[in-house]
Amino acid sequence: MTKFMDVHSGFVGVSARQLQEAHARDLVIEADEGVHFERAWLDPDRGKVFCLASGPSREAVLRIHERAGHPTSEIYELLVEVA
Amino acid sequence: MTKFMDVHSGFVGVSARQLQEAHARDLVIEADEGVHFERAWLDPDRGKVFCLASGPSREAVLRIHERAGHPTSEIYELLVEVA
Repeated sequence: MTKFMDVHSGFVGVSARQLQEAHARDLVIEADEGVHFERAWLDPDRGKVFCLASGPSREAVLRIHERAGHPTSEIYELLVEVA
Repeated sequence: MTKFMDVHSGFVGVSARQLQEAHARDLVIEADEGVHFERAWLDPDRGKVFCLASGPSREAVLRIHERAGHPTSEIYELLVEVA
């Protein structure tokens, strides 16, 4: 399993509830692709959303996001993590 | 304390060791600004680095990154987090 960060732009003014609902739409179908969306963060003033996921491939992550209604072309494969 | 995500571009081919060293340069000075860099992730093929931090302001996070030698203009204030 690899970690992925995907980035969504243009979500200015999205509320916490809307982000929670969008995230929930991923969670209910993510197992179909062996993906897990761990966390999502929103900057409502700049309209940016970041989703941290684990899964077998970028394509698997993207397919879940597409089916949930929020595709993105920006998805990064996080081969290195430090803490 | 607020969470922040900053994004760095152009780091194609950076190694795990180089990311660890860069992150360590933040950690040794972060307390000066009341900032904590929690995690950093790297996509070495696309040259993207994401840093998740907590701190009092965007400016405080940026000042630490500048002093550590890796400024960025892309820093987002994560007012909403879901899991």
